[in-house]
Amino acid sequence: MSTSPKATYEPLNEQTAIQLAVKLNVFEAATGLSCREIGDGNLNLVFHITESATGRGIIIKQALPYVRVIGESWPLTLERARMESEALQIFARYAPQYVPVVHHTDEQYAITVMEDLSRLKIVRTGFAEGEVYPLLSTHIGEYLARTLYGTSDFALGADARRELALQFHNPELCKITENFVFTYPLIDDESNAVEPGLTELAQELWSDQKLLLEGAKLKQHFMTSAEALLHGDLHTGSIFASDEETKVIDPEFAFYGPIGYDIGLFIANTLLSALARQDDTREQLLHHVTNVWNVFQTRYTELWQTDNQEHFAAVPGYLDYQLQHILEDTVGYAGSEMMRRVVGLAHAKDIEAIQDDAKRLHIKSSAARLARDFIVNRSRYQSAEQIVQALQQADQGVEIGI
Amino acid sequence: MSTSPKATYEPLNEQTAIQLAVKLNVFEAATGLSCREIGDGNLNLVFHITESATGRGIIIKQALPYVRVIGESWPLTLERARMESEALQIFARYAPQYVPVVHHTDEQYAITVMEDLSRLKIVRTGFAEGEVYPLLSTHIGEYLARTLYGTSDFALGADARRELALQFHNPELCKITENFVFTYPLIDDESNAVEPGLTELAQELWSDQKLLLEGAKLKQHFMTSAEALLHGDLHTGSIFASDEETKVIDPEFAFYGPIGYDIGLFIANTLLSALARQDDTREQLLHHVTNVWNVFQTRYTELWQTDNQEHFAAVPGYLDYQLQHILEDTVGYAGSEMMRRVVGLAHAKDIEAIQDDAKRLHIKSSAARLARDFIVNRSRYQSAEQIVQALQQADQGVEIGI
Repeated sequence: MSTSPKATYEPLNEQTAIQLAVKLNVFEAATGLSCREIGDGNLNLVFHITESATGRGIIIKQALPYVRVIGESWPLTLERARMESEALQIFARYAPQYVPVVHHTDEQYAITVMEDLSRLKIVRTGFAEGEVYPLLSTHIGEYLARTLYGTSDFALGADARRELALQFHNPELCKITENFVFTYPLIDDESNAVEPGLTELAQELWSDQKLLLEGAKLKQHFMTSAEALLHGDLHTGSIFASDEETKVIDPEFAFYGPIGYDIGLFIANTLLSALARQDDTREQLLHHVTNVWNVFQTRYTELWQTDNQEHFAAVPGYLDYQLQHILEDTVGYAGSEMMRRVVGLAHAKDIEAIQDDAKRLHIKSSAARLARDFIVNRSRYQSAEQIVQALQQADQGVEIGI
Repeated sequence: MSTSPKATYEPLNEQTAIQLAVKLNVFEAATGLSCREIGDGNLNLVFHITESATGRGIIIKQALPYVRVIGESWPLTLERARMESEALQIFARYAPQYVPVVHHTDEQYAITVMEDLSRLKIVRTGFAEGEVYPLLSTHIGEYLARTLYGTSDFALGADARRELALQFHNPELCKITENFVFTYPLIDDESNAVEPGLTELAQELWSDQKLLLEGAKLKQHFMTSAEALLHGDLHTGSIFASDEETKVIDPEFAFYGPIGYDIGLFIANTLLSALARQDDTREQLLHHVTNVWNVFQTRYTELWQTDNQEHFAAVPGYLDYQLQHILEDTVGYAGSEMMRRVVGLAHAKDIEAIQDDAKRLHIKSSAARLARDFIVNRSRYQSAEQIVQALQQADQGVEIGI
């Protein structure tokens, strides 16, 4: 598969972005439009166009044909723009209130024109600033149950599911996850960013054969199990929210994989923000962890019982088995994600922001111990409350015993 | 996906088959060729063309755009001819000595021109006639290890594996398996063929909630786990053999699925032939069951250790975990296959041939009890010897206790 830009591809600038908006008749008039590029320049251009008369806005997102991930530019398929816009449209079938509206897509230019979410804030940023987003986990639990159940064999039947899975053949982005989440953080790879006070702990992890074995199993399960259409990168940087509203964005890593991966990523990043938080709002973040699972479980159960194409769906024990399997994966993948946020390349912003070295190192080593337990002992977890209990044990420096 | 024949598709007859052979320059001269249609007329036309001067022959196989499976004709994709010929060519990369040579393919006409195997006999037929094929399990064990390991993530790396899996998107044939192997035999479906003396046993199986639960798990694993490129229908009717040679044919059900499925099908059908056999050659068939697993395990281990792209391949316990997982699936899928051969639509020829009612019913109910144990208790099996031990227990009417 080619990773080079197509012949006609050209990056937009603020002027041509406005021209495109006019051409697409997104606004009533062709005048009074202003445009600002608000992307991080790493993977995509993001243009925010607003109409001064009405205050209305739209977003034009354009994929760049490379990613700057380890200092140098690395060519990356423009196909990911198609993955993202198609995934957004599919997720909108199941959970329209939790994804931005897509107005227009152009595969050749790798462009998606979508709803302006500037009234909301990225949750990762909000969490680092002390926000709690009281409805976040209820919304994300609903989103997860509806999109993951909705795209599974149980809801779609195998034929339609297999067809949909073809559309989300996404090898380049899957490979990034396989490397940066599942492989490099568990070995002494040059891409890892381990701060000096943690080198001993990192060495210990990298020679922990039990951790490597269970990490390898999670990796293989990620690579081979086509359970549902995943967002594929559902950390708190992929969620916009306010106190009332929640929108999941950026599903360019979408592919058919294990259901627990999406849930695990949300839980891991919320746990890291909770660990970073020292005031009494920590409890509210921990509540998100139990609540997201409980909401997911309730809605998944309801969908399973009311809209299921599998002949054996009502066999006693089958739904319980599925939920326990998903929980086990959720815990394991939360562990993989936390591990990479401590010793891998991309860290948790709110933990890195802690200036007090002892405090920061304590949090990171608690997170690493917790991550190890999640990976190695994932099958012991029977409830989301136990996830929170394990965090409290890790933070207090006592042995994690679920 | 369209299941109707393409505009230019036309079925061959004995004359046009010869014309095609001449056009393809398969033989040195265009004269002295004779042709016989030897297919069963159910799914495919099979022309055997021989050159009288040299005695050389070839096979021209053409898919028909329907299948007669339950008395009436059922349209079925011609794509399966492409699946079959492409799978044969891929399997030939890994195990050339165990698959027929493909000389030519034509997608439009759904034609595969391949090696004449008339020197060999279909193993199902040979088994029914008392043959034992002393090298069969050594060859099939090699074939299974080489093709299944060779097409896995471990050998190919995830990128190449994902690409190959796309090529074997085979929903229509997968659906046949999902229905006729995994669903109908476990429920009171009209397609089942239960002989009168077994109705009580069948009712018992169909209301056995533990069996249904474990059967459902095996079905879902079959549907979602893309471990390796499977043959997909590896019963003894898909194998040609002599005392010296073995060739695996008819991989039209090829798709990415769980490794244990192929192994389980071979074992199930061999066990059924062993149960049907009352003389002292039964032991030789039972030897095939232990030997096919042991040969598979030995070769898989060697390939794993010498040609592995997975970073964690050498982590202690990982290979053992894989092998135990494959054995568990093998036992479970052997159970699903045996169950459908007793209560489902397509039965085991050699068992049906037994005239003595009491004897035949004893064998069938032993097979059904064994199948149930394989499905329900598959995780208890730690060796292929235990599979044979369970058969002996079932045949002697004692409780199966592995």
